[in-house]
Amino acid sequence: MQYFTDTDMGLDLRLVNLSVESAFADHGRGLVQMPPKVYITLPEGDFRTMPAYLPSLSIAGVKIVNVHPNNPRQGLPTVMALTIILDLATGQPVAIINATRLTDMRTGAAGAVAAKHLSAKKEIVLGVIGTGRQAEAQVAAISRELKIREIRVWGRNPLHVRKFADRFMEYPCMPVSEEKACDCDVLVTTTPSTTPIIRSEWIREGTHINAIGADAPGKEELDPALLRRAQVFVDDPAQAIHSGEINVPISHGHYRADEIAGTLGEVVIGKKRRSGPEAITIFDSTGLAIQDLAIAKIAMQHGRKIELPFP
Amino acid sequence: MQYFTDTDMGLDLRLVNLSVESAFADHGRGLVQMPPKVYITLPEGDFRTMPAYLPSLSIAGVKIVNVHPNNPRQGLPTVMALTIILDLATGQPVAIINATRLTDMRTGAAGAVAAKHLSAKKEIVLGVIGTGRQAEAQVAAISRELKIREIRVWGRNPLHVRKFADRFMEYPCMPVSEEKACDCDVLVTTTPSTTPIIRSEWIREGTHINAIGADAPGKEELDPALLRRAQVFVDDPAQAIHSGEINVPISHGHYRADEIAGTLGEVVIGKKRRSGPEAITIFDSTGLAIQDLAIAKIAMQHGRKIELPFP
Repeated sequence: MQYFTDTDMGLDLRLVNLSVESAFADHGRGLVQMPPKVYITLPEGDFRTMPAYLPSLSIAGVKIVNVHPNNPRQGLPTVMALTIILDLATGQPVAIINATRLTDMRTGAAGAVAAKHLSAKKEIVLGVIGTGRQAEAQVAAISRELKIREIRVWGRNPLHVRKFADRFMEYPCMPVSEEKACDCDVLVTTTPSTTPIIRSEWIREGTHINAIGADAPGKEELDPALLRRAQVFVDDPAQAIHSGEINVPISHGHYRADEIAGTLGEVVIGKKRRSGPEAITIFDSTGLAIQDLAIAKIAMQHGRKIELPFP
Repeated sequence: MQYFTDTDMGLDLRLVNLSVESAFADHGRGLVQMPPKVYITLPEGDFRTMPAYLPSLSIAGVKIVNVHPNNPRQGLPTVMALTIILDLATGQPVAIINATRLTDMRTGAAGAVAAKHLSAKKEIVLGVIGTGRQAEAQVAAISRELKIREIRVWGRNPLHVRKFADRFMEYPCMPVSEEKACDCDVLVTTTPSTTPIIRSEWIREGTHINAIGADAPGKEELDPALLRRAQVFVDDPAQAIHSGEINVPISHGHYRADEIAGTLGEVVIGKKRRSGPEAITIFDSTGLAIQDLAIAKIAMQHGRKIELPFP
């Protein structure tokens, strides 16, 4: 059994995107085993247990990931993750992977796969709402699939916006107003907001949106009126209804589960698609265990390994 | 984060029994978080993911355990397990435990807790059906709670029976017929049988039975008529109905879920008990995640640790 400490170092993001895309294709074809995430509530947060088996990538395992919003006060990440990989033939645990950074990257990869298949254009102005780790991961991953001509970024903290703009200055990356950031071809929203911050009238026809921030009940970033104008694709219907961008609008009766246009997996295999160049498309991301296995498959070829005795 | 390689070495079985008993008490009081086990099917077996949180023992985590019947052909155990322990305050993974042997021991401990509370006598003749690792674990754990005057063992393989008898010769331990093994005060059944091997007429009044072997749909060791004569206690009703000793009789209409006398947790807290000295009591064990956390709590004070970098 091996412990992988820093598998995110030097990962080829294009390969990660391809692996995650392949996992979504299998999901679209019904070829994966992936029971719903199991939640356990702890005093100051929770942890989720995410088992899955992806036959086509020959990988099976479990990600264990926590969400503890107060952690940064004591210098720890809010989200930390381990992925355990089992040998398919014997069930023996063969790898334990520090998956904290990989969790950011696999979410970025899902956004890239969605943008690749749903963006109306191949050369884009990219709007970014939020300036945290996931905003960076989305830009990095999407840049491998589409040509980014310009980035327009908005965030609440001007200092964070400035640092983000500096990091991606080569595109160039411009700090702008919220409304101006929405004037783009592909918009990525990555905030933990619990009230809509993106107004429907700010979004023009033909825009694709990666709605990443909402990943728990009560969270939402988009004006529900925008959902009604758009084709909404989800990673997994049950998870999206429970904790995705559509969870609050559905619970308030502003959106219905039967209005979901399809899954990203169905888009990847060509079963579903954007209805035309003028459509607004939304990818509602909640995060799937198969994404974690797909990136683990690549990650285990990288980084430092520590041999551990087992059994 | 620490990896614990051999926590089973030198464990105090009396302490393990106490810790597991405490976990069952909390279960009986409804104080634990323990969603149902999640099964993933692999080509030649399966693995189960078992998350839980035990507030009173201040421990939370996940056991991942496989069942691969063909493993012994290549020198690997059929069952192998890892337990991941998370820090309660931050959700950070703090321990990874090789839990293969601990899985045997925590099942033994549950049997000991059941025998302690349900046996009509404190000094017993112990009948043992089966001679594998779990049969040994049951004897070792029960011996810490009751005075064993004699062991009567039966198994299909005479060589294995002889080795088992030699291992416990101090009691003494006698190889006997199946029927003679059933002539006892506490009977432990530990086979992977899929047809009843214990006839109802072999069991006299006042006997307590730990039915350990049946842990998956289709498995059963006891004559269904015996269930109807007995008070059947389970570790967890949902798991027992799905995969415990009662699963086949229930699916065939020979037993009803509403006939279950109670849970072991309810017995431990005194809410349920054997109805009298002449009653036949049965403990139907399927294995709970809280048992794994209870033994992990003790095990982390033992054995060799390897420091791993995280996060």
